[in-house]
Amino acid sequence: MGKIVTSASMSLDGYISGPDESGFEHLFGWHQGGDVEFSAADPRWSFRTTEASAGHLREQLAGTGALVVGRRLFDVTEGWGGNHPFGVPVFVVTHRKPDDPPFPGGPFTFVTDGVESAIAQARQVAGGKDVGVAAGQMARQALAAGLLEEIGVDLVPVLLGGGIRFFDTIADAPVVLGAPRVIEGNGVTHLRYPVR
Amino acid sequence: MGKIVTSASMSLDGYISGPDESGFEHLFGWHQGGDVEFSAADPRWSFRTTEASAGHLREQLAGTGALVVGRRLFDVTEGWGGNHPFGVPVFVVTHRKPDDPPFPGGPFTFVTDGVESAIAQARQVAGGKDVGVAAGQMARQALAAGLLEEIGVDLVPVLLGGGIRFFDTIADAPVVLGAPRVIEGNGVTHLRYPVR
Repeated sequence: MGKIVTSASMSLDGYISGPDESGFEHLFGWHQGGDVEFSAADPRWSFRTTEASAGHLREQLAGTGALVVGRRLFDVTEGWGGNHPFGVPVFVVTHRKPDDPPFPGGPFTFVTDGVESAIAQARQVAGGKDVGVAAGQMARQALAAGLLEEIGVDLVPVLLGGGIRFFDTIADAPVVLGAPRVIEGNGVTHLRYPVR
Repeated sequence: MGKIVTSASMSLDGYISGPDESGFEHLFGWHQGGDVEFSAADPRWSFRTTEASAGHLREQLAGTGALVVGRRLFDVTEGWGGNHPFGVPVFVVTHRKPDDPPFPGGPFTFVTDGVESAIAQARQVAGGKDVGVAAGQMARQALAAGLLEEIGVDLVPVLLGGGIRFFDTIADAPVVLGAPRVIEGNGVTHLRYPVR
């Protein structure tokens, strides 16, 4: 069975978004880090990066069967315009279902009974592949529930000085992780830590 | 001429000390990560780690000619018992010189006119080697003054959930760093980022 994983591009000082939703040109600069093309099913998500980073992304894309995301991420991205670039079912954890759910017929299911329920539903449809959990708050809740099995950090050489942290208010700390798999890109160090 | 550098063992969630000065057994677990002996001039600082980490430490030790540290670090370590394990001159940045400076004849010089002055004095005696700046607050001040040339992070696979952050209140963010040198240890990923 697939794993429950989270991953994010993170600045060296721990932010997945800079102040006032700034800094993405730095956090995702590695998406233009080379001349090897990477394309998701969705043509909007196509860019040129290093062979190492492209291989890493291809593996992530091929290994992911469903996603669990927070309502905030869904709203900020405006529902990825109706379809997540990964092209998989997306379970949106929310306190309250929208009265008029956007993108009917799209991949989105609104879940009001928490991240554990959303992960269980995502597992059902993931076809044995991984379930990706995003962003930080959802990942921390999955970690606290003992469900998270891998933490991926795409560590970017920039200090953003403020914004939204990937790791904040970790329950039950210290949490000891396993040794990471390390892949060096251009403008990024990909780190994948197993949760013990 | 040597560089102005800082480095620290940091948890994946950004802490160089856990809550209430806890977590050091995790942050420095890699000091017992293998069977290759590393010894500083000072026999108190001797441990067994991987060949990769030992080589990294030997290089750091041999390359460091003087240190600039904050008063807090000096006090917390109780002046390293009178001599820093690196065996080099140490400039302690403080608001007020102690009335009765500890360890007379020791390597410590108390500097009351700020980190820039301390770095200038350290450079004078570093014999062309690097000047190490510690800990976080001193490093951030050196960065803000445009003096810091390298940031080293010994990234440890643990989430500490609280404590003292290495990077906090960065002035003039975003600060774009260069590509890191990456060395994989056991229980640590050594990352060395040039400041541009």
